[in-house]
Amino acid sequence: MDKDQYSSALFNETVNEFAKFPGIGKRTAARLVLHLLKQERPIIEHFGNTIINLAQNIKHCKCCHNISDTDTCTICSDRSRDHRLICVVENIKDVIAIENTQQYKGVYHVLGGIISPMEGIGPADLSIESLEQRVNSDQVYELILALSPTMEGDTTNFYLYKKLGKYQIKLSTLARGVSFGDELEYADEITLGRSILNRQPYDGQNL
Amino acid sequence: MDKDQYSSALFNETVNEFAKFPGIGKRTAARLVLHLLKQERPIIEHFGNTIINLAQNIKHCKCCHNISDTDTCTICSDRSRDHRLICVVENIKDVIAIENTQQYKGVYHVLGGIISPMEGIGPADLSIESLEQRVNSDQVYELILALSPTMEGDTTNFYLYKKLGKYQIKLSTLARGVSFGDELEYADEITLGRSILNRQPYDGQNL
Repeated sequence: MDKDQYSSALFNETVNEFAKFPGIGKRTAARLVLHLLKQERPIIEHFGNTIINLAQNIKHCKCCHNISDTDTCTICSDRSRDHRLICVVENIKDVIAIENTQQYKGVYHVLGGIISPMEGIGPADLSIESLEQRVNSDQVYELILALSPTMEGDTTNFYLYKKLGKYQIKLSTLARGVSFGDELEYADEITLGRSILNRQPYDGQNL
Repeated sequence: MDKDQYSSALFNETVNEFAKFPGIGKRTAARLVLHLLKQERPIIEHFGNTIINLAQNIKHCKCCHNISDTDTCTICSDRSRDHRLICVVENIKDVIAIENTQQYKGVYHVLGGIISPMEGIGPADLSIESLEQRVNSDQVYELILALSPTMEGDTTNFYLYKKLGKYQIKLSTLARGVSFGDELEYADEITLGRSILNRQPYDGQNL
């Protein structure tokens, strides 16, 4: 018997499906499917149906391109948020990460990637046109460019600066500096250098 | 926004389903669902349908209780295997583990657990009766008791010994000893002690 083969083709097929996820190998996949098989049939069916339901009904917000159950996502339809402050992010994960901080009360714009000539991703592949439309029509006063602190992120920042600089808006990027809880000796030189240049006034509180 | 809430209820629900698996937390579950969402819709649907198909069509072999696509599993219907040698295991995982060694050419009997008064599992909850029927009718010459090397495993071994000792069969258990690749100083005392008492004749090869 091959190591990839179990006594059931159904089991084998399900294990192979789970093993497609990043970070899940064959062995972990088999463990997950065996866990599933310990459940009652309706529970397993419910799991499968949840996934199918997701596939068939998930939408992207027509305004910010975040995932949504409706045409406009809950963030874009929340009247208590500041719709004139837009945080530009690479993908949905970044929206979740920023929402989890509970510090941000503006809205988002999901680009769907960043400019990367190496991977063949150019400005036309990103939702930059719809961003420009929002800036043009929504009385936006500030764009926060919250892209990855990488070469590609910087390239995309610069492209957006060139493209949108003509509008009467403020452009900002996330503060860069040493992380909370970091030990200085392990911070990389670029980060540490910038955090000295961009040092903040200290009033006894703002750490 | 609550940390458990995302902007999409569909997304939220799917994350919660994935987070039910042992060893998968909310954050990993979200990562898995985001990976799913990067796929085309038919691929996600196929994943969901595979799970439903598993739930609806998986069977347990009527002979050994291993999972199977048919009434009798591929191992039990394999004529090249020795059907008079039965390896008694706790669950399906153990069948997979032993099959992966490619050392065993007999058949199996899956008990579906081991006797555990702490968890309220008694002999009647296990497929011991069908094991006795097999021993009684199949001209079995040996039962290998391959249960966990724990108190519960030992209790179950003893129960099976009492129950099946009256038949003209050989009963054996897995060899216990130091693991391949182990360093002696880290082996536990009981294992090391037994491996000295049960030392094996050495012919220059059998390590």
